[in-house]
Amino acid sequence: MAGNSIGKAFRVTTWGESHGRAIGVVIDGCPSNLEISEEDIQAELDRRSPGKSPISTQRKEDDRVEILSGIFEGKTSGTPISLIVYNRDVDSGWYEKIKDIPRPGQADLTYLLKYGIRDYRGGGRASGRETLARVAAGAVAKSILKSEGVEVLGHVVEAAGVSLERDVSIDDIRENTEKNPIRCADPETAGKMMDSILKIRDEGDSSGGKFELIALGVPRGLGEPVFDKLDADIAKALMSIGAVKAVEIGAGVSSSLMRGSEMNDGFFFEGGNVAAETNNSGGILGGISSGMPVKATVTVKPTPTIGKKQKSVDLVGGENVVVEGRGRHDPNITPRALVVGEAMLSISLADHLLRYRGYVE
Amino acid sequence: MAGNSIGKAFRVTTWGESHGRAIGVVIDGCPSNLEISEEDIQAELDRRSPGKSPISTQRKEDDRVEILSGIFEGKTSGTPISLIVYNRDVDSGWYEKIKDIPRPGQADLTYLLKYGIRDYRGGGRASGRETLARVAAGAVAKSILKSEGVEVLGHVVEAAGVSLERDVSIDDIRENTEKNPIRCADPETAGKMMDSILKIRDEGDSSGGKFELIALGVPRGLGEPVFDKLDADIAKALMSIGAVKAVEIGAGVSSSLMRGSEMNDGFFFEGGNVAAETNNSGGILGGISSGMPVKATVTVKPTPTIGKKQKSVDLVGGENVVVEGRGRHDPNITPRALVVGEAMLSISLADHLLRYRGYVE
Amino acid sequence: MAGNSIGKAFRVTTWGESHGRAIGVVIDGCPSNLEISEEDIQAELDRRSPGKSPISTQRKEDDRVEILSGIFEGKTSGTPISLIVYNRDVDSGWYEKIKDIPRPGQADLTYLLKYGIRDYRGGGRASGRETLARVAAGAVAKSILKSEGVEVLGHVVEAAGVSLERDVSIDDIRENTEKNPIRCADPETAGKMMDSILKIRDEGDSSGGKFELIALGVPRGLGEPVFDKLDADIAKALMSIGAVKAVEIGAGVSSSLMRGSEMNDGFFFEGGNVAAETNNSGGILGGISSGMPVKATVTVKPTPTIGKKQKSVDLVGGENVVVEGRGRHDPNITPRALVVGEAMLSISLADHLLRYRGYVE
Amino acid sequence: MAGNSIGKAFRVTTWGESHGRAIGVVIDGCPSNLEISEEDIQAELDRRSPGKSPISTQRKEDDRVEILSGIFEGKTSGTPISLIVYNRDVDSGWYEKIKDIPRPGQADLTYLLKYGIRDYRGGGRASGRETLARVAAGAVAKSILKSEGVEVLGHVVEAAGVSLERDVSIDDIRENTEKNPIRCADPETAGKMMDSILKIRDEGDSSGGKFELIALGVPRGLGEPVFDKLDADIAKALMSIGAVKAVEIGAGVSSSLMRGSEMNDGFFFEGGNVAAETNNSGGILGGISSGMPVKATVTVKPTPTIGKKQKSVDLVGGENVVVEGRGRHDPNITPRALVVGEAMLSISLADHLLRYRGYVE
Repeated sequence: MAGNSIGKAFRVTTWGESHGRAIGVVIDGCPSNLEISEEDIQAELDRRSPGKSPISTQRKEDDRVEILSGIFEGKTSGTPISLIVYNRDVDSGWYEKIKDIPRPGQADLTYLLKYGIRDYRGGGRASGRETLARVAAGAVAKSILKSEGVEVLGHVVEAAGVSLERDVSIDDIRENTEKNPIRCADPETAGKMMDSILKIRDEGDSSGGKFELIALGVPRGLGEPVFDKLDADIAKALMSIGAVKAVEIGAGVSSSLMRGSEMNDGFFFEGGNVAAETNNSGGILGGISSGMPVKATVTVKPTPTIGKKQKSVDLVGGENVVVEGRGRHDPNITPRALVVGEAMLSISLADHLLRYRGYVE
Repeated sequence: MAGNSIGKAFRVTTWGESHGRAIGVVIDGCPSNLEISEEDIQAELDRRSPGKSPISTQRKEDDRVEILSGIFEGKTSGTPISLIVYNRDVDSGWYEKIKDIPRPGQADLTYLLKYGIRDYRGGGRASGRETLARVAAGAVAKSILKSEGVEVLGHVVEAAGVSLERDVSIDDIRENTEKNPIRCADPETAGKMMDSILKIRDEGDSSGGKFELIALGVPRGLGEPVFDKLDADIAKALMSIGAVKAVEIGAGVSSSLMRGSEMNDGFFFEGGNVAAETNNSGGILGGISSGMPVKATVTVKPTPTIGKKQKSVDLVGGENVVVEGRGRHDPNITPRALVVGEAMLSISLADHLLRYRGYVE
Repeated sequence: MAGNSIGKAFRVTTWGESHGRAIGVVIDGCPSNLEISEEDIQAELDRRSPGKSPISTQRKEDDRVEILSGIFEGKTSGTPISLIVYNRDVDSGWYEKIKDIPRPGQADLTYLLKYGIRDYRGGGRASGRETLARVAAGAVAKSILKSEGVEVLGHVVEAAGVSLERDVSIDDIRENTEKNPIRCADPETAGKMMDSILKIRDEGDSSGGKFELIALGVPRGLGEPVFDKLDADIAKALMSIGAVKAVEIGAGVSSSLMRGSEMNDGFFFEGGNVAAETNNSGGILGGISSGMPVKATVTVKPTPTIGKKQKSVDLVGGENVVVEGRGRHDPNITPRALVVGEAMLSISLADHLLRYRGYVE
Repeated sequence: MAGNSIGKAFRVTTWGESHGRAIGVVIDGCPSNLEISEEDIQAELDRRSPGKSPISTQRKEDDRVEILSGIFEGKTSGTPISLIVYNRDVDSGWYEKIKDIPRPGQADLTYLLKYGIRDYRGGGRASGRETLARVAAGAVAKSILKSEGVEVLGHVVEAAGVSLERDVSIDDIRENTEKNPIRCADPETAGKMMDSILKIRDEGDSSGGKFELIALGVPRGLGEPVFDKLDADIAKALMSIGAVKAVEIGAGVSSSLMRGSEMNDGFFFEGGNVAAETNNSGGILGGISSGMPVKATVTVKPTPTIGKKQKSVDLVGGENVVVEGRGRHDPNITPRALVVGEAMLSISLADHLLRYRGYVE
């Protein structure tokens, strides 16, 4: 049954396989008269793009997005926006060799169990490459949010066992994050994270991490109780990213160790508006945005493809085997997953904005 | 916009306010010829019910569920199942006094911001009481799952700062969990948890916790990539519970500290089937169930209603005030949230089962 | 799979069987601060109610609607509105006798084929009685529409072979329709229709008819191309009524006999706004409302339950049989179907209004 | 709000403007291991294609479909199928001249009212050219249906005032329909239809018609009461085609003139199965397929673009004007709309088949 769409008012449908003809996305429900260009979308794709640092796969993805519909004379026309990125630089040789040997930590086995057929080339539909369609859609969502004064930020708070220990400001995040390959808002911590990542990589292994997402300026009132809560939809959107194993809102897992008197964000008047002294709730109460920054923390597992030998099975041969990884993979996917996370959060927020406000500007 | 439904094939819609006439649920899409009785549903409601231990609210909720439609001669007929629980024992006096003072950590403020009107009595729609409708629907979902050999279990692994330190077996969970008020599978740890909860309660404060959910016997192939992944839908379902601040799948937040070689669950043949040596993935790969147990861990924040004074605002008076809680609340909601968590996981699994297999038996 | 809901922003879910405990509806997505009372809803239910004229079933349905949730101090609160009507005056004896003999023109056979079980009492879920839940939801939809200046009207244009031959004005419809049992805007034609209906009834047979629906004041811009067009959604909503066999928009079936120059509604300026000289389009162009009245014509088949003998099969006995109808049925259902038609049109319009404008007033 | 998708289990999303870069469709939910080739899809596109007879537009649409995803080694893989047709032969000059003058009978005015911007080139999104995406998706749906033994047929029963008077058999339809440009199953009537169409065309005008759709071998049990009835969803699917003004199921508009004893299809045993003597119900009872052929009749309005002068307004100039059509249009769109109708019926049936049976073969 159909499962490749997300959002109700702002509806995003992605399609495409890693080594197929192309990857693409259809965005349905975008308001009209919004200025969108291929450059805006390309800029976000470039942030996700690998091949630019020692910690990303060396697969050269010179991905160029093309707008196929929905934009007329530089503006959205209210009709579906179709975006496409043709696949290039594909070499499926290695994947063919292991097509009957499901890689541990990957979707090889379950796709085969479910569908009885599997496009094994580059991971097919389950490849991380699918996320470029999400990032393209996220760029459109960001444009909607920007027009409403909403800013979506992300920064890595843990990588390869190294945690960000000091408090970073919004300005730190804005200024520093894109300046280092691990996307940490603190340059010193970034250096330590890189060291740890490369050390683990040199052992033929991979590492994971955590990133935090922050949305500033989110209008009050977004979110539809009791199931389509803003935090519930954000959790789904983020958990749908392949490498993600946990989603926390506000104080998240540490909430369980707090007391009620500590967890509850006390209210006070600030210039006539109700503000909160702390933000353990992550900007959402009862599933509805409160006007405080929306905050989520996401855990990214270590990249499953590693150089080390791993136990698997030969489904055709019917015997236990050992499988070895190979070159083109990220030793730590966290900073690229962060870009996808920003996109998914933006899609959720844009969807709820349009659910609440409707189409009319 | 409509947000009170969850599921696509097995669709659950809840309605009702805490101190309104009744709370109810409509379940659409349940297969026919399934034996369901009011007793089956009542049994799950009783598990959620408060008033039975020192750590739950003293509000006496002698809730009786009635089946209004969808069951014919003891069996489901394929038509919507409507369940209702009439509200009793309601005293809205206290709530009326603080109707203009939003309680910190509650949805009072955001409902008012969104809707411009708020049923303040007992928390209205945002009350935890709404979850009894979820538990009723979960009982129906459990019946479907049971007929397919799926068992859903839950147990508390942390409460009020006390963690379950030893490994517990499935049998421990089955046998011990319902025997102590905190629903911990280890009796000794349960005692420590209770001590800590009561100590914090006596200080006029509340505490949080974590519970783990396990589904055994989940058929392979459930979950629809790439957005309606099984883990993504489970994350949404669980995060939609009021007190939940984090959802983890499999190894969850600890994934980020593992290496790829450790995180990846190696495959091997076991009696002709592919099995995995570990289950860090939580039984889901690429959003599709693998046949291993489905595992999720949920963080529950401390109960927002506490005896201590808290900062808030008087929205009508326009000034900062201090608000005090009062008697009827749980000092730790974790063991009751667990029952809701089991229900939501069961609803997600039943939905995906029917999405995959369709209606026909 | 779930199919008992309609609408996306204004979502209506009905439940209940004809001779079960109750019939009900949950309305999710209704804007807040709208004044709604049980009396408003009851008034529409009374219009649908039988037992008041020689051409409706003598089953006494003294149906009283109760509001169970969603209304606080006389106003909608933005939460789901749950409405219930308890069933009374049920005698399932006759239905039990023919439970293995599917009635021609009814859903008996197909429910059994699909579900393998059937609540045969009074037609179960497939009974026309289910439509009272639609009418209750339609009353809420009408309140939303009224607050936006939209008026929904209906009148019977053909019954038992007698057609309305003269043009009737909007005022004729407003004034005359509710004054005769057949709901014809022309009193003289109404008399002829009644004569024909009663004559056919006296022969132990039943007759059908057609009604026209008109919505005045529909805002421009409702309808979402290219599938969720306003006319497409109206067609679905109306065709989902049990007795309906055809839905026409604007000039409808007669369009095929017109020429383009005749069919096209020419535009002109009227007081600064664009108006149309004719309204063959039925107020919808390209699936979007144009500001002209929305018009639909609906064909109602003759009531399937008749006094005459009909051919059927005994599913248990395994032989061809003859089945006879019995007392309690309408000789012509058109005027009651009209009330349901108004409700369904109102639901569609309210849904599209909220899809377009969102929640915010 | 998103409106460019149809179907729940088999979900079709179209995108693209008439004179934009391309037109395309994403099909989500197609079962795996189904053999599909570009040739299969192209064959259906060619049936819809104009430029092949005196009664279709002379715009040369040498449309070539390309499969971009979802097919692996000639078989569906369970992932979204993305199909694209690049636009060629576009000359937007004439459309630019009338961009401020909405054409009567077209969507120009309402798109502008709704979106505040309009891709005027070739009718933009509201162009009949959008339907090629539907036909491409319909080809995939037909493949699913074929694998289940379902055959979907269509034939024109009225055109330009000429009706098919004699009964035609299924074999007549299979053999004759594709042999004449008007797609009439009776060659003699086809000739008369063509004469009438061309006569009206020569007067600078256009004409309409009606076509009948028949689905043979539809499994019993498709359709989800009470709103997602099979006939309700078919009505929506067909009414969403631009030129369609009426949808009839079974006996349709003529039902109102029948008596109950005539309308009801009597049952009898035929080789152990329940069969019906007549098929006035159109193969659907209570919204569920009965096993009899599913039948619908569709009314197509005359092509709005005509040579004759028509009244309109200059939205920029602010005055009433007269607008003249121009060359490239069909004098009668009925036989091409029929191909789209077959596609939409096939999509509805495939959707309900998968909703009922699920994904598993």
